[in-house]
Amino acid sequence: MSAVRPADPDRLWSTLQTMAALSEPGPGVTRLAYTPLEREAHDRFAEWMATAGCTIAVDPAGNTVATRPGRAAGPATGTGSHLDSVYHGGRFDGIAGTMAAVEVARLLHEAGAETALPLRFVAFAGEEGARFGQACCGSKLAAGLSSRAELDARRDRDGVSLAAAMAAVGLDPDAAARAAWDPAEWSAFVELHVEQGAVLERAKLDVGVVDLISGSTRIELTVTGQASHTGGTPMPGRSDALAAAAEAVLLAEQVALDPRHRGTRATVGRLSVLPGSITTIPGQATFSLDVRDVDADRQRQSAAEIVTRMRAACLRRGTRLDARLLADTSAVVLPDWVRTEVTAAATELGLRYRVLTSGASHDAQMVNRLVPTAMIFVPSRHGLSHVPEEWTEPAQLAAGADLLLAALLRLDARAAAAATLENAGGAR
Amino acid sequence: MSAVRPADPDRLWSTLQTMAALSEPGPGVTRLAYTPLEREAHDRFAEWMATAGCTIAVDPAGNTVATRPGRAAGPATGTGSHLDSVYHGGRFDGIAGTMAAVEVARLLHEAGAETALPLRFVAFAGEEGARFGQACCGSKLAAGLSSRAELDARRDRDGVSLAAAMAAVGLDPDAAARAAWDPAEWSAFVELHVEQGAVLERAKLDVGVVDLISGSTRIELTVTGQASHTGGTPMPGRSDALAAAAEAVLLAEQVALDPRHRGTRATVGRLSVLPGSITTIPGQATFSLDVRDVDADRQRQSAAEIVTRMRAACLRRGTRLDARLLADTSAVVLPDWVRTEVTAAATELGLRYRVLTSGASHDAQMVNRLVPTAMIFVPSRHGLSHVPEEWTEPAQLAAGADLLLAALLRLDARAAAAATLENAGGAR
Repeated sequence: MSAVRPADPDRLWSTLQTMAALSEPGPGVTRLAYTPLEREAHDRFAEWMATAGCTIAVDPAGNTVATRPGRAAGPATGTGSHLDSVYHGGRFDGIAGTMAAVEVARLLHEAGAETALPLRFVAFAGEEGARFGQACCGSKLAAGLSSRAELDARRDRDGVSLAAAMAAVGLDPDAAARAAWDPAEWSAFVELHVEQGAVLERAKLDVGVVDLISGSTRIELTVTGQASHTGGTPMPGRSDALAAAAEAVLLAEQVALDPRHRGTRATVGRLSVLPGSITTIPGQATFSLDVRDVDADRQRQSAAEIVTRMRAACLRRGTRLDARLLADTSAVVLPDWVRTEVTAAATELGLRYRVLTSGASHDAQMVNRLVPTAMIFVPSRHGLSHVPEEWTEPAQLAAGADLLLAALLRLDARAAAAATLENAGGAR
Repeated sequence: MSAVRPADPDRLWSTLQTMAALSEPGPGVTRLAYTPLEREAHDRFAEWMATAGCTIAVDPAGNTVATRPGRAAGPATGTGSHLDSVYHGGRFDGIAGTMAAVEVARLLHEAGAETALPLRFVAFAGEEGARFGQACCGSKLAAGLSSRAELDARRDRDGVSLAAAMAAVGLDPDAAARAAWDPAEWSAFVELHVEQGAVLERAKLDVGVVDLISGSTRIELTVTGQASHTGGTPMPGRSDALAAAAEAVLLAEQVALDPRHRGTRATVGRLSVLPGSITTIPGQATFSLDVRDVDADRQRQSAAEIVTRMRAACLRRGTRLDARLLADTSAVVLPDWVRTEVTAAATELGLRYRVLTSGASHDAQMVNRLVPTAMIFVPSRHGLSHVPEEWTEPAQLAAGADLLLAALLRLDARAAAAATLENAGGAR
């Protein structure tokens, strides 16, 4: 066994580019949850991991799990992220963490390094909520938090259910809903991800370590007014669904900017109008609302206040507002002891870091329901994410991968020590 | 020759239903400008007119012209309307006037009635601006007001130019741009149309006679902001293109409701958002603006003021606004003497009528550039139009057709008298 070398920025970059090529046409990367393109990315991940000496399994939810044996059997230390993207997204979201896992596996394999207990490298399926309005589909199933009924209820733009999409790529939604991971097989988990904010860039730091992940309340809203001719219908007395929706969009922003809601982020990201003709007053407008907060109570209060105020504005305009909850997750506090191993590793490596919160949701928050989890952030240029301009320097990715490897080794050693203590206790 | 009978509501209704069946799937009627479905409707119109003893011609713009000979050759009195619809429109807009023309031709044919000079029945092509943002395409070409370049410049949602759409249904855009009608062949024109407003219904009147047709300024606006992750991006400092567009939608309404602009109607009927993901702050929003007024100066001032205020609002939000003029027509004053013949006919028939303005644009305003034109309105239930709920009672349609027939006969007699006077003058 030779010394484990540092992560190679060029190799990380090339791995990342291979994945970026798996995209629908159009700007940026579009590789949606539970599509053949996503499955192709999983196949690629599995090949790389097999080459690095891992054994591969795909669970019923479509999560690909690569296991690298340790000197002894026992609970594994894990890492991983997702391979799907939003519509017209970037190359780094999800991929950064999955590629860092690939790099860690390669570095250990090349050095012939051994760990005390197994390591596991995971590519989660369907993390982005962009297609089905539900984030972290694969990791939520792994954590046993989804029901079969939920897989039928979630639908994409075209009305395709999550269950149908899973079946279409050869997965079994019935089995997926019953196949939660066994917590006894895991000791700790670390997800590396791009920050998707500008805290690290502004503070000129190498990495971030997450203590808290925002929750998200997602609602679909439909305003029903009365379509009519734009020329024949006087301004007073119109029931213009788009004008009502425009007021609603601004109300969401206004509530989130209100000092009482400091920290809440509210966004309308999707809006469509019917019939969508230049010469017809809109009769219907449908839009999404995404409310995020690190405080679960404040998040739900904000969402409720926004919908109440939207409904009042719609009524004043002679239109009706219908609201449908798409998804609702609470903020998650990540355990202190795993984070401490990560920050200790960062200190050893001489990396400048800070502890910060995550505004975005991540597979880590689902995995944390099963196994104590930490998160590493690498910087996002200008804080941009979910856009083609998403960017992290290869050297920054490499620093993150180095920290990930060091943290996994510390956690493995800690798990091994705990196992030894237990055995010793058992022998007494 | 027997007496000409009154219009038959049942027959009008059945003719109308035959046309309504020519529609794309979905709510209401969708039979867009320059599509095979629209051409099928023209073929049906031509068949009916041929059966009623007319000779049929289709001009290079796709307008179908049916001529019924008079006792003498000479300038014709004309009537007609259009056969295309908006997206998800109703059964009456355009069709009411075209079917009234069919009914008039049938009634004259059945009675073996003769007119002094020819009558002409016209189905105009591509009246609705819904597809290309340009209203009255066929009648504008007939009036010699369109250029070949304009036919290339106007494009539909899918980027198909008006010229390409014309060619795709077998029309020749080059010929169309050169083939204006000859004014010497016409003496007067009357278009019957549904009101698309609620003036007649509220006043419990049978028909309306139009004195003024609103103009329309149509603009496409694009807001460019910065897409980014909804969770990772703090509220302050966002460049949310949809929030800016929402402000713009409300500004259009606010300017139109301002007492200084009394009479202006401003509507945003179409709006789309990119990338259109629940978890991405919109980076781009594109929307239409339709400003209408019977006062051409006020219309353009209102449009300019709306765009100026929109641009300022977008700038304050760190977004950019680009505006592109789609179409711009001035209000049209219809000539008093043709209208007087129509109101005199209404009085003779004992129909309750009033003179009113039209908020919508019509082929009549284009035809009026060539030949003196009047318009008859029949009531629209609840003033609704451009929607599937569009409705006019068959008896109201029949009353309109009776008035149309009586007005055409009066105009024919007047044209014949004028021709006799001219001839007498020529012989002196």
